[in-house]
Amino acid sequence: MTYCLGILLPVGLVLASDSRSNAGIDQVTRVSKLAIIQAAGERVVFIQSAGNLATTQAVVSRVRQSAGAGVEGQDVLATKSMFDVAAIVGARLREVMAHDQRYVQPYGDATAAFLVSGQVAGEAPRLFQVYAAGNFIEATERAAFLQIGETKYGKPILDRALTHRSSLDEAAKLALLSFDATIRSNLSVGPPIDLIRYETDTLAVDRLETLGEDNVYWRQLGRAYSKGLAALVARLPAPPPGRA
Amino acid sequence: MTYCLGILLPVGLVLASDSRSNAGIDQVTRVSKLAIIQAAGERVVFIQSAGNLATTQAVVSRVRQSAGAGVEGQDVLATKSMFDVAAIVGARLREVMAHDQRYVQPYGDATAAFLVSGQVAGEAPRLFQVYAAGNFIEATERAAFLQIGETKYGKPILDRALTHRSSLDEAAKLALLSFDATIRSNLSVGPPIDLIRYETDTLAVDRLETLGEDNVYWRQLGRAYSKGLAALVARLPAPPPGRA
Repeated sequence: MTYCLGILLPVGLVLASDSRSNAGIDQVTRVSKLAIIQAAGERVVFIQSAGNLATTQAVVSRVRQSAGAGVEGQDVLATKSMFDVAAIVGARLREVMAHDQRYVQPYGDATAAFLVSGQVAGEAPRLFQVYAAGNFIEATERAAFLQIGETKYGKPILDRALTHRSSLDEAAKLALLSFDATIRSNLSVGPPIDLIRYETDTLAVDRLETLGEDNVYWRQLGRAYSKGLAALVARLPAPPPGRA
Repeated sequence: MTYCLGILLPVGLVLASDSRSNAGIDQVTRVSKLAIIQAAGERVVFIQSAGNLATTQAVVSRVRQSAGAGVEGQDVLATKSMFDVAAIVGARLREVMAHDQRYVQPYGDATAAFLVSGQVAGEAPRLFQVYAAGNFIEATERAAFLQIGETKYGKPILDRALTHRSSLDEAAKLALLSFDATIRSNLSVGPPIDLIRYETDTLAVDRLETLGEDNVYWRQLGRAYSKGLAALVARLPAPPPGRA
């Protein structure tokens, strides 16, 4: 399992992906699930992946190979919009599924899902979720975050504390706390975590952080949050006594 | 969907169940998912249900009808232990499944799960989770809570803040915050919430509370928690700047 999170804000994008891949508990490796394709000053494209690793790698490799080649409908560096980039990822996913699915089926699930985000000069940053079917949805002001993979454990803290007015740093803290909640509850999601804070109109990746298990900030954040949460709960009033 | 939570502590039990039942989004009703069977001063038995409503009601009705009749292996008021009570619920579930499953299959899922808890004089309080297969597990000191139904959204706060040393009131606050997280994220779980705080060795239900949507405490708790959480996150340090 994987957990990938994308947050869309007026001030930019915050993206976080775990790096654990497993094909059974005895075959655990680290795989980056965040791909970056950019033409600095003109556009930056992020692709986060969840699902069958062969499928996601095949899709990302195909997208990368065509980037810059200038073929319309295939080149993510030549589209007019991020919408067209999401459509390319969806189309590549359909190709890979058509190519592999029936061979994989006897052994397991070949499907995959993606978060596709970034900014093309002239547009605001955009964030899309590409489904296993290759179609996709876009984050809007009312749904400022999208998730793929193991999504449930990390959702409550975002529902509670993330707002459209959050800063990149605030959203990054919430993203990491969302990962901390997921990692505590699900062994198959684990560090290192790739974290991107992309500031609107910079049109280049200026802040990429990889937080490993032994990262001091990562450890302190989880500990300080748990401690603060216990203190907060202690301050809340107790439920009224029940009727006998 | 349903969410039921059972917490086992040295000081007693905290149980919480939502009351929403739906067979499709246009057929939503309120159904108590917490049954109480007791012989005050000698034992108290709690059964929380999730899954197919016809199945769970059939199981609870069969258990109730046999209570006090004195037939060994059927009477939850005549067992030596809570372990034997859990075994009776599992056996009744297998009977109902054998009776109904093949008829229900064309229309949907007939399965169900239960939390069975309480105290029999001479034993400490105990808490069991009865699986759809009718077998069951018991909560121990290291796994102080069990959940059935929509379990994921409400798990992180329990993982973080619940300890074996929590008081009944602290555990009750955490149980309600766990429900608040679930209700925010999943429309099919909803108030009113039945809440039990059972104090070890009282051998009677002395504190039962039903918190509806308009319950003042319920509303204030969620609001105060969200506010406190936002303040807590604001106080945490920001992630270190990334490598360019």
